[in-house]
Amino acid sequence: MNEFELIARLTPFLPGNHTVVAGAGDDCAVLDLGVPDKLVLFKTDAVVEGIHFTRETPPEKVGRKALARCLSDIAAMAGAPTAALVTVALPRDFDAGFVAGIYTGLNELAARFGVAVVGGETTTNPERILISIALLGLVERGKQVMRKGALAGDAIFVTGELGGSLAGRHLDFEPRIAEAQWLARHFHVHAMLDVSDGLAGDLRHLLKAGHVGAEILKSALPVSRAARLRAKEPGANARPAALAALMDGEDFELLFTVSGKDAVKLLDGWKKTFPHLKLSCIGKIVAGEGILLRDKHGAHPFSGHGYAHFS
Amino acid sequence: MNEFELIARLTPFLPGNHTVVAGAGDDCAVLDLGVPDKLVLFKTDAVVEGIHFTRETPPEKVGRKALARCLSDIAAMAGAPTAALVTVALPRDFDAGFVAGIYTGLNELAARFGVAVVGGETTTNPERILISIALLGLVERGKQVMRKGALAGDAIFVTGELGGSLAGRHLDFEPRIAEAQWLARHFHVHAMLDVSDGLAGDLRHLLKAGHVGAEILKSALPVSRAARLRAKEPGANARPAALAALMDGEDFELLFTVSGKDAVKLLDGWKKTFPHLKLSCIGKIVAGEGILLRDKHGAHPFSGHGYAHFS
Repeated sequence: MNEFELIARLTPFLPGNHTVVAGAGDDCAVLDLGVPDKLVLFKTDAVVEGIHFTRETPPEKVGRKALARCLSDIAAMAGAPTAALVTVALPRDFDAGFVAGIYTGLNELAARFGVAVVGGETTTNPERILISIALLGLVERGKQVMRKGALAGDAIFVTGELGGSLAGRHLDFEPRIAEAQWLARHFHVHAMLDVSDGLAGDLRHLLKAGHVGAEILKSALPVSRAARLRAKEPGANARPAALAALMDGEDFELLFTVSGKDAVKLLDGWKKTFPHLKLSCIGKIVAGEGILLRDKHGAHPFSGHGYAHFS
Repeated sequence: MNEFELIARLTPFLPGNHTVVAGAGDDCAVLDLGVPDKLVLFKTDAVVEGIHFTRETPPEKVGRKALARCLSDIAAMAGAPTAALVTVALPRDFDAGFVAGIYTGLNELAARFGVAVVGGETTTNPERILISIALLGLVERGKQVMRKGALAGDAIFVTGELGGSLAGRHLDFEPRIAEAQWLARHFHVHAMLDVSDGLAGDLRHLLKAGHVGAEILKSALPVSRAARLRAKEPGANARPAALAALMDGEDFELLFTVSGKDAVKLLDGWKKTFPHLKLSCIGKIVAGEGILLRDKHGAHPFSGHGYAHFS
């Protein structure tokens, strides 16, 4: 059983109440706590030593990454982050300097995004460091963008470049908070999420939520330099660049759809507003299900998935 | 360096923003997100296999405990819990039945307290299960009760019975949500927290926050049956009952102070409202600092502390 199967088994039995606008299954939970013009976003995410970082990773980058992952989820709903709690689980012989470094990186990113760090806790995890972030955000009522909502005929966009993130970018990525808010303010974004498990895997979440399929143009995939370099490596380490863009994961870019008729206007507006960040139209939503990958030989079903814990 | 020293070193550098009413250092963070008549409470807490539970603990009780600890913190602010996220970190060979059991116990308690479980995540922690809960609550503006605020002359109260919790009660305790809300509604509670690290340790938090001391009447300590039984055990396992009540921890009862003149009225009202839950006046707040323990031989400084990770 992988993590998605486990979650699917558990989700139907979660208790709800009148505050829940959207519970499990999207980038953040959405709650109506009675703020007149806003809804509350609620998210947790953990990074674990040996999986998301190592003892050799500079601790400032570990703390930065822990918070940035959550910020990316707030971005994926077009929200603004507000306040975070930090849980650090540590071996008993922890290095106080490493922990201080975690907070230095985390605090710097929090301050830059206007996030208050309002506490948390330290506990013991004897074999490895684990950091869990709980993050609150706010979004204007009606402006939250969910995973569901994609329609046949939509254009599919992705920000930035994909693939090869483990070469370094997974520690330095920029959460797309401002970009997502601009999108939601100026366009009717039908569906959005952040690419964390790999484009193919996350696109499948969007497609399943909307009961639609996608046709992706292989040549339109924005492959990162790191992934292109890796594709040229000799031997077993090499991975075709397009596959890396589809499956590597930890990209933390925005994946979203808008009506096909908005596509050109969106690309024009984006270039003026965010001239230093690539935006790529990588394909279209189609009726049906699953992913078709189109190259010069035609369109073929693509069966690759993204990263899953325990699989 | 123990956890409290680590936290003291890190706390001054945490970034804030205009939403923060109270950040790190109390049972919950308190946020003003713009709900007209309410403030938002925000808390995380983790339980770790081998420390807070074992593989032999029924998983339903593990899940129940994980949430109940957070509920107790919401109670300590006189708030009402609203929504929770659940992070479960699991070895790769996890037992799906154990995880389902965790959720069964957690969901049951959540439903009973009106808490929505709105998602969370699963991740990998190869050596042991770790469960972190993030919990939101609401409290009427101005009715939140902090750790600070105790005044010389206050009567000190504690609910229930203390000590010996590890004999079983740490898995079955009842968060005192209704009791705390009743207290805040009918009395001016000067200071409150929940007893998680042991009465002595948590009382010290309250005293330090208020820059006051306490005189505790040893004979007034409500010692649990489990602690009394343990005190009679032969050999090294025995622990004097009063010491158990002061230092065992994991009691999750409310510790609070009200003006001395309110003490009798409070005890009378409590007996009518919560006839099945003991409320004990265990001493008084005095000028100065630290804990004086009074027995038939007089009042002596008590230097014992509660539980601290890494110490």
